Amino acid sequence: MTSEVQQKGKLAKAASYILNIKTTCEKNEALTKIAEQLILDQEHLIAENAKDLAIGKENGMPSSTLDRIMLNKERVEAIASAIDLLVKLDDPVGKLLERIDKENGLVIEKRMVPLGVIGMIYEARPNVTIDAATLSLKTGNAVILRGSSSAKFSNVALVASIHRALEKTAIPVDAVQLIEDTNRETVKELFHLKQYLDVLIPRGGKALIDLVVNEASVPVLETGAGNCHIYVDHTADYIKTEKICINAKTQRPSVCNAAESLLIHHDWFSEHGVQLLNAIHHAGVTIIGDATVCQAVDYAQQATEDDYATEYLDLKISVKLVENVYEAIEHINKYGTNHSEAIITEDQLVADTFLNSVDAAAVYHNASTRFTDGFEFGYGAEIGISTQKLHARGPMGLPALTSTKYFVHGNGQIRE
Amino acid sequence: MTSEVQQKGKLAKAASYILNIKTTCEKNEALTKIAEQLILDQEHLIAENAKDLAIGKENGMPSSTLDRIMLNKERVEAIASAIDLLVKLDDPVGKLLERIDKENGLVIEKRMVPLGVIGMIYEARPNVTIDAATLSLKTGNAVILRGSSSAKFSNVALVASIHRALEKTAIPVDAVQLIEDTNRETVKELFHLKQYLDVLIPRGGKALIDLVVNEASVPVLETGAGNCHIYVDHTADYIKTEKICINAKTQRPSVCNAAESLLIHHDWFSEHGVQLLNAIHHAGVTIIGDATVCQAVDYAQQATEDDYATEYLDLKISVKLVENVYEAIEHINKYGTNHSEAIITEDQLVADTFLNSVDAAAVYHNASTRFTDGFEFGYGAEIGISTQKLHARGPMGLPALTSTKYFVHGNGQIRE
Repeated sequence: MTSEVQQKGKLAKAASYILNIKTTCEKNEALTKIAEQLILDQEHLIAENAKDLAIGKENGMPSSTLDRIMLNKERVEAIASAIDLLVKLDDPVGKLLERIDKENGLVIEKRMVPLGVIGMIYEARPNVTIDAATLSLKTGNAVILRGSSSAKFSNVALVASIHRALEKTAIPVDAVQLIEDTNRETVKELFHLKQYLDVLIPRGGKALIDLVVNEASVPVLETGAGNCHIYVDHTADYIKTEKICINAKTQRPSVCNAAESLLIHHDWFSEHGVQLLNAIHHAGVTIIGDATVCQAVDYAQQATEDDYATEYLDLKISVKLVENVYEAIEHINKYGTNHSEAIITEDQLVADTFLNSVDAAAVYHNASTRFTDGFEFGYGAEIGISTQKLHARGPMGLPALTSTKYFVHGNGQIRE
Repeated sequence: MTSEVQQKGKLAKAASYILNIKTTCEKNEALTKIAEQLILDQEHLIAENAKDLAIGKENGMPSSTLDRIMLNKERVEAIASAIDLLVKLDDPVGKLLERIDKENGLVIEKRMVPLGVIGMIYEARPNVTIDAATLSLKTGNAVILRGSSSAKFSNVALVASIHRALEKTAIPVDAVQLIEDTNRETVKELFHLKQYLDVLIPRGGKALIDLVVNEASVPVLETGAGNCHIYVDHTADYIKTEKICINAKTQRPSVCNAAESLLIHHDWFSEHGVQLLNAIHHAGVTIIGDATVCQAVDYAQQATEDDYATEYLDLKISVKLVENVYEAIEHINKYGTNHSEAIITEDQLVADTFLNSVDAAAVYHNASTRFTDGFEFGYGAEIGISTQKLHARGPMGLPALTSTKYFVHGNGQIRE
């Protein structure tokens, strides 16, 4: 018997070949219809979502998770508005990247094309269901969604709305598939569905992402954790330093581009260290420091080796003194997660050394790490922030959901 | 105890951080020194190579494999000349891909950067040792080479020459590492060396590539097999058709961009089929045909389902009649390997349908599939031909060995 995953994989692949040649206009029309349908269906969506919440409460789910799952009128409207913004973005499909005119008359064009079928494995966030489906459709891709059992009623209802909307459009209904069986086995089946899947995108915590990266033979678009550092060089301007450190740590501590560790040049520390630590402390941040830091201020807690490798995602920061920019670079390349790294300095040469030598998706001179974000970078959409080096690195906009294809136009050319 | 793979992985990673910031001039100087050293060392290289050949002969290795392993004066000189050509190519590292000027004064630059450490797993071709090392150095990458036991003496000698050359340059000797233990376990260790390896590139036959793709948790740059088709539409020009079919099949049948299967519109076949089959047959090609083909010419052999999925890499072609372009597209998307696919037609609309709907790295209108090649495309170098959709697709030049990095220049900006 064919499994649900196999069956829906096959349907998605077939749909991808139709979707592949749809115009931007046809795709945008479908997106608009989905946004409208979600508003039309919102009472039903909220009612189905309530079933997930009831089960979650019964199972003693933490309130933060329940809040992530919850849909209400405002949230459904926000999801629909996000689709309207997506409609306005440029369609990357068909974009000419390169043109080669050969002496023999061959014209070779390299253009962006859809990836084909995207497999999305994610945790208990019903909004990802819509986000993944609409980003995929915008870029001409079919999608297979595998959400969490704890949002099952919500996901089924949301995908039913998408299907109702697509029925009225040029886009095949089969382009969006939801795996309803939330048994762990269906995830494993997706890991190896090379026949139908072109890429797998895990969205969720580190454990989920690591599992997919380590197990899947289908290529993975990896979005990673952020153990981000700020290095304060000996020529750093104090005002900039305080502003950037507090922003990078406290503006939204739970996200991957928040700073987790502060490296300070020992000369600078002698002059400004206590003032900076006091300012960070007063902003509500727990200081986990090395021996010198703990000597300098009594509210600091002693750092262990583990602290330097930890992404706190909390109002907590490790602080360590270093001899120079080289020690800072070495520390970051050892403990960092290749996400976002900043230097504060007035010395351009030192800045350049840092920016070139630190191995990360985004490197900052005199600015907060919090800017690593698809919307901040002006991409208008964000698939996630890639910390891998192949295909896409850093904030991924719509082009990350495309591949390329060489179109070769001839009139009888053969190779001599 | 640290294994050879772990130890050399660590050295390569450390070297990659130094190599990373070397100038194009420094890298080119090192490449030139390597070319010179190979010429200086050629007697020794040929002598060491002779040991591999002797062992191979003793073990009854086929003469085609022995020929692939063999180094002589001409071949060493050819390898050195290829390095001189590589020196002349543009260095992709540092290339500006995107610049974003934010209203708050932030300047965001997206630039090409080296990948870091490349792991190369390959079969019995000593020339790949030099090719992989020099392409990696040119793009600022360190490399870990894992060649075949049957070329062990050659590989050790070649890498020793590289090291002797690098000693006189600004490029760290540790940037090129050879795993000398050719036990299968060392390959498996490389599959999961995520701590030190940024990408794995298998070069060799389908079995090797499949093994790496299926087993490795390190990201893989996949170069694949080519089951390439030519579809002859009902408006195809006869002269172009014959020329292209014979070229794509016979010019070099053993390579991945050679045609393996011919799909012919039944109307066109009624008029020109026998003439075309005769021409291909006279070019020395065995015709494996469907029922109609076998009825039309007595030298055709009956095709099975398996034939349509087979990459013959030989003077053999499967021939099948189809109703129209849609049946051709469906057949290709079912049996093809997403490499190179051609249509011959005088109807531009039909051509566009084919080019857009066929899922392949390179699609051709009225030209031979044999052009899918980094040198033919003008890239001046070729890492391989990618049939995967992430990172790079089709012929890969030097940019395929780079990643990107966002350089963000500020003067105190924080996120509001």
